[in-house]
Amino acid sequence: MNSESSRYSAAEVERFLTDAFVALGVPARDAGVVAGLMVKADLHGHDTHGIFRLKQYSARLRDGGTNARPTLSVIVDRDATAIVDGDNGLGHLAMLYATELAMEKAERHGIGWVGVRNGNHAGPASLYVGMPVERDMIGLYGAVGSANHVPPWGGTDLLLGTNPIAIAVPAGDEPPLILDMATTVAAAGKIKTLAQRGEAMPEGWMVGRDGKPLTDPSRQKEGFLLPIGGPKGYGLAMAIGLLAGTLNGAAFGKDVVDFTADTVSPTNTGQFFAAISVAAFADPDQFKRTVDAVFQDMRASPVLPGQDPVRIPGERSLAVFRERSVSGIPMHPNLVAVLRKTANELGVTPLAAIDGPA
Amino acid sequence: MNSESSRYSAAEVERFLTDAFVALGVPARDAGVVAGLMVKADLHGHDTHGIFRLKQYSARLRDGGTNARPTLSVIVDRDATAIVDGDNGLGHLAMLYATELAMEKAERHGIGWVGVRNGNHAGPASLYVGMPVERDMIGLYGAVGSANHVPPWGGTDLLLGTNPIAIAVPAGDEPPLILDMATTVAAAGKIKTLAQRGEAMPEGWMVGRDGKPLTDPSRQKEGFLLPIGGPKGYGLAMAIGLLAGTLNGAAFGKDVVDFTADTVSPTNTGQFFAAISVAAFADPDQFKRTVDAVFQDMRASPVLPGQDPVRIPGERSLAVFRERSVSGIPMHPNLVAVLRKTANELGVTPLAAIDGPA
Repeated sequence: MNSESSRYSAAEVERFLTDAFVALGVPARDAGVVAGLMVKADLHGHDTHGIFRLKQYSARLRDGGTNARPTLSVIVDRDATAIVDGDNGLGHLAMLYATELAMEKAERHGIGWVGVRNGNHAGPASLYVGMPVERDMIGLYGAVGSANHVPPWGGTDLLLGTNPIAIAVPAGDEPPLILDMATTVAAAGKIKTLAQRGEAMPEGWMVGRDGKPLTDPSRQKEGFLLPIGGPKGYGLAMAIGLLAGTLNGAAFGKDVVDFTADTVSPTNTGQFFAAISVAAFADPDQFKRTVDAVFQDMRASPVLPGQDPVRIPGERSLAVFRERSVSGIPMHPNLVAVLRKTANELGVTPLAAIDGPA
Repeated sequence: MNSESSRYSAAEVERFLTDAFVALGVPARDAGVVAGLMVKADLHGHDTHGIFRLKQYSARLRDGGTNARPTLSVIVDRDATAIVDGDNGLGHLAMLYATELAMEKAERHGIGWVGVRNGNHAGPASLYVGMPVERDMIGLYGAVGSANHVPPWGGTDLLLGTNPIAIAVPAGDEPPLILDMATTVAAAGKIKTLAQRGEAMPEGWMVGRDGKPLTDPSRQKEGFLLPIGGPKGYGLAMAIGLLAGTLNGAAFGKDVVDFTADTVSPTNTGQFFAAISVAAFADPDQFKRTVDAVFQDMRASPVLPGQDPVRIPGERSLAVFRERSVSGIPMHPNLVAVLRKTANELGVTPLAAIDGPA
């Protein structure tokens, strides 16, 4: 965030998002749920997966690509597994349903694994994997990315997304581990943010069709995102795509709709979510003490010259959450301008900055 | 494999391994099970995870680090989850038990997730994830590596292993996807093989304590393995370690025993194995036809200049399996020499090459 950024309170951002979704035809209760999850993403520093996405969501709601009034349902249901049909509503709704159902199943059977079909972009995975942690459960999430930016290893056809994986594990006195990662070196949202800010990408994030590094984020469509570990990241993205997409009857591979470029076609986005009850394996308090000790050992490691102290995944995001909960959510002037335009189009009261109207 | 390699039939390798384990006090039935799985690893081209490991396994059985006559048990058991206690026997025995139990649970409840404690090195993950595939199930595996070669990201204390993850998905006419990957750029076994052959490592596999590339595999102990995607691979290795180790009451972090250097201490190795029944989500035949189509689309992609055609993870290994099933398993002269020494020590008939005694 540069120094020109204004700050916005979580309550005001949530108010604005709720108003915007209601203006787009989303029922008030659903609008509030999605707005609450989006604000939580911004509070945690996931700047590319919170209010930043309103423009995309509103374009799709407006143009009919996303269903403003979905009816969610469970279409197959076994003791420990199910598929939730999101009825092409805002993706957060189906993911929240799937998360709650997985936790209920884990409570009863040790684990619950719930797939989503007819979902949509649902914000950062950490929103969902963080929920079972509050109940002494482990969370596990995978998704088919909302556009294909990656070819199969060695190839040039864009058939894979950044297909993220997320895992959260509860701790005791320590903050939980919350890992939320794209299987590409860079996430698509990060590149969108750099493009909006007019900043360059580091080498290693993308290559062009000539195989050479691509660093101008506005030329994103001319190249490919690189998977982590080369063929390993390709393999992970494939496996996650089959589990989150194909297994649930959701899109994967050439059926994936570019969520940004196409605002009228249902995406049939697929995700999977698993909750694992720690109590099915161990005494939760004992488990959490052991996790604390592991994290403390990691953090006590001496560091390589010039490196920051060792961090546990999720630690930085928690620090951002604490700071933003007090000081508000900073937004880049370019984002503020986009949101002001959206407010005008929808006829809702624009966002007011903490230190006065933006 | 260089041209000096001799070839050995699968039956002869299995005979030799069974004899060796029996000579080390392993009951004949268990010896046969482990030998069969080890030969399967070699047939599939996992040269670092088959007979290559006999030297380590026999040292630990001889010195008491591994229990030759374990009694396996299930210590916690919910509908869809369990922990198997491997009683410090050869790791293949507990992993096979866990795999079978997970498949049984998946059959009844949609998914089965089974952890292992008091296990040991169990060969390649692909051995196990390939089993549910034969029953129209998906396999998922993670393990705490059998020695710590990796510091937490930015640090220098060796607290993490190569903690592998494996995922297998059934297909129809196409071969299944079988992904089996270390979360480091290179697997420890690959480095052991290069050291045995006297060959150098590529840059990017390891760095020294000065942060500079390390390419001499015999100097492995002076440096660190690098995780895939930097902090992402570190996060994955942590999450896998917590799920495969800590959750099961198995070792993770500073409690990990170096399986090679220490031949007397129980390792308390932990793994997890999940089986997911495709039938709990979809019609298996329809699912497998869709998977076939996805794989065919990937393989039809044009390639970057100088690249091989796109492959599906597991495809190369299957080709090796077919070739070696006919022509036998090639072994490097250095490995053959080690095995001859082991045969002498144990008083068992040495391996006979296909074209005469090696």
